Amino acid sequence: MFKLKKFVIPTMFALLQGACLSSSQAQDSVGLVEKQVFSTPNFATYNGQQIAEVKVGWEAYGELNAAKDNVILITHFFSGNSHAAGRYASSDALPGYWDAIIGPGKAIDTDTYYVISSDTLVNQEPYNPLVTTTGPATINPATGSPYALDFPVVTIRDFVNVQKALLDSLGIEKLHAVVGASMGSLQALDWAAAYPDFVERVISVIGAGAVDPWTIASLQQWANPIIADPNWNQGNYYSGEAPTSGLRQALGMVTLQAMHPQIFNQVYASSSARETAPLHDIRENFTVVNLLNTAAEARTTFADANHLLYLVRANQLFMAGFAENLAAGLSPIRAKTLFLPSANDLLLQPYLAQEAHRTLQELGKESYYEEIEGPWGHLNGVYMLEQKSALIEEFLSSQ
Amino acid sequence: MFKLKKFVIPTMFALLQGACLSSSQAQDSVGLVEKQVFSTPNFATYNGQQIAEVKVGWEAYGELNAAKDNVILITHFFSGNSHAAGRYASSDALPGYWDAIIGPGKAIDTDTYYVISSDTLVNQEPYNPLVTTTGPATINPATGSPYALDFPVVTIRDFVNVQKALLDSLGIEKLHAVVGASMGSLQALDWAAAYPDFVERVISVIGAGAVDPWTIASLQQWANPIIADPNWNQGNYYSGEAPTSGLRQALGMVTLQAMHPQIFNQVYASSSARETAPLHDIRENFTVVNLLNTAAEARTTFADANHLLYLVRANQLFMAGFAENLAAGLSPIRAKTLFLPSANDLLLQPYLAQEAHRTLQELGKESYYEEIEGPWGHLNGVYMLEQKSALIEEFLSSQ
Repeated sequence: MFKLKKFVIPTMFALLQGACLSSSQAQDSVGLVEKQVFSTPNFATYNGQQIAEVKVGWEAYGELNAAKDNVILITHFFSGNSHAAGRYASSDALPGYWDAIIGPGKAIDTDTYYVISSDTLVNQEPYNPLVTTTGPATINPATGSPYALDFPVVTIRDFVNVQKALLDSLGIEKLHAVVGASMGSLQALDWAAAYPDFVERVISVIGAGAVDPWTIASLQQWANPIIADPNWNQGNYYSGEAPTSGLRQALGMVTLQAMHPQIFNQVYASSSARETAPLHDIRENFTVVNLLNTAAEARTTFADANHLLYLVRANQLFMAGFAENLAAGLSPIRAKTLFLPSANDLLLQPYLAQEAHRTLQELGKESYYEEIEGPWGHLNGVYMLEQKSALIEEFLSSQ
Repeated sequence: MFKLKKFVIPTMFALLQGACLSSSQAQDSVGLVEKQVFSTPNFATYNGQQIAEVKVGWEAYGELNAAKDNVILITHFFSGNSHAAGRYASSDALPGYWDAIIGPGKAIDTDTYYVISSDTLVNQEPYNPLVTTTGPATINPATGSPYALDFPVVTIRDFVNVQKALLDSLGIEKLHAVVGASMGSLQALDWAAAYPDFVERVISVIGAGAVDPWTIASLQQWANPIIADPNWNQGNYYSGEAPTSGLRQALGMVTLQAMHPQIFNQVYASSSARETAPLHDIRENFTVVNLLNTAAEARTTFADANHLLYLVRANQLFMAGFAENLAAGLSPIRAKTLFLPSANDLLLQPYLAQEAHRTLQELGKESYYEEIEGPWGHLNGVYMLEQKSALIEEFLSSQ
């Protein structure tokens, strides 16, 4: 069995919040990063509605060349944000989540590429001071109150279109690559389908081409405790008590389900079936349950329950290309694609990436597939991607 | 990909309630089955408490021989009950859940063996007219009201001890085998550890030797929505509204998590990411979510929320032999053991059975291991076990 190095356990809570396993040396780092804000008015959503003003945060590493053709876009995962590499301040405990693969001389080499990443719409953490997003918790200018459920349902295509508007504002007309993990992989693939002349390469890490009924139902498990929380109140809780209990339950499930038992049993090795408190009192919890509740509680700090519901929905509605079926959706793609699912992923299992890869190949597209190994399950795509550095580097430099 | 025969889909709801895939021919059947009730006073629980009276239902197939040494005990799974084979009435739509492997000339041959099965303590369905169980919904003779949370926490060992008392009452002093799926497999293995001179063979189907932190946390997901339901009221709901919403959420998760995406996506193929209702209204659900809610709602009919909490706890507390560690717990075993995990089980993954199998072999015990194939995930142990008929027959007839 894979043995984790000792330093992993103490940093577990930080890890679960999306920070990076490998703390990079100063000389390998992209250095200090500045978070910026992009805004665009009258944003038309995929489902035919309008948002008066969309604001999202973004950041970049490396230098944009004169031709503006050295751009790599990083699209973030469900619980993540734009902070993929570097530190905002030298005192930051940990760098962005993919710092191990983004930086000078790294797989995504910031000596060569201008790497840009933005917060999505309906980001899980609208109250995180380092996140700027637009969603149900945003003030609706028409009413002066938060949108709540008046915010339109948004899709992965909308996330892509906000990024497109950001790139347009910077005069960027070509993406050397789009690279994303999990929900980020959905954006990456849809980018190539929506803007085939814009995107040259896609790396889909722990991803899918389309969400199947099993994944729709599994994602719904995260929404259910929020909807069942009486404080949710049909989404109208901004002037009262928030549905924190439901949100904590949801984030506990996100935490658990993103991990494989192999790592989970190491992280929570202090708990066992032999504990005496839960044997004697049905109200008592196992150590692992208390620890998971504490971790989930910490994750609620900056999170908003409605934003989580909208994120779940955006993922449930995903089929790359948003066409009648996956083949039709993928057919416009001109980019070459590299799929990197995690071999022991329990959330987005490798069969999903295989289906997209196979469909692209059947369409005569250039597509590659390799599995990430490691003890983390789904999170191998965040913590174990460094093992694919040579492959990523080669894929990015290929013509 | 494995293709299901067409008849499977229409009977899905029945299947999910524990009925059997293969409807047996009359001539192969154990025939009409009579449900009986066993009761025992002053039952001492593993955690040192007492239950004034334990009553459980039981049934049997085949004939007990004069030496009373042809007995096979079947121990049931989480959502199951004693009804493993045959029909209570000829009008019953479906036979017991393992009718495909229990009957005259079948893997567990009722021409040879006397096959007996009982309802467990804290059975999920105390309101099922065909189930007799004792648990939080039972009237506490000391108060005249349901026990609610005053009912002692019970363990798999308590389930075993109730079965032991039942067998004692029948003058049975030897078990040719104990055979169980999932929670039933936990009982089967613990039987051999608790009463090594009593048990000659164990078949552990989709089972484990001990519950690990990942499984403890995963099971807790089923308890959480009940505890969060305001109607749960610390377990005191018997004179008011029951926590049906939390119970439905829990049973929806049980239904989903017991299945592999391969079968789930066939059963719920009518749903897709391209549905328009959920695209236009965040309050609308996908077809698969509505169907799963309906299935879960149906499963609440006879179920009790506190019973489900106690069942979760009994499973969370499991380590075969109830000793300091698994090796110590398994060391008294004299029975030979056959492990039959499901290759694509997402609930009790094969590594759990492998650990128990390996530990038994390291202890010098006779242990065998083979994986069940099929599209069902965990439920392969219920619906696809017939493929192991020859192996089971051989194991049962071996000396």
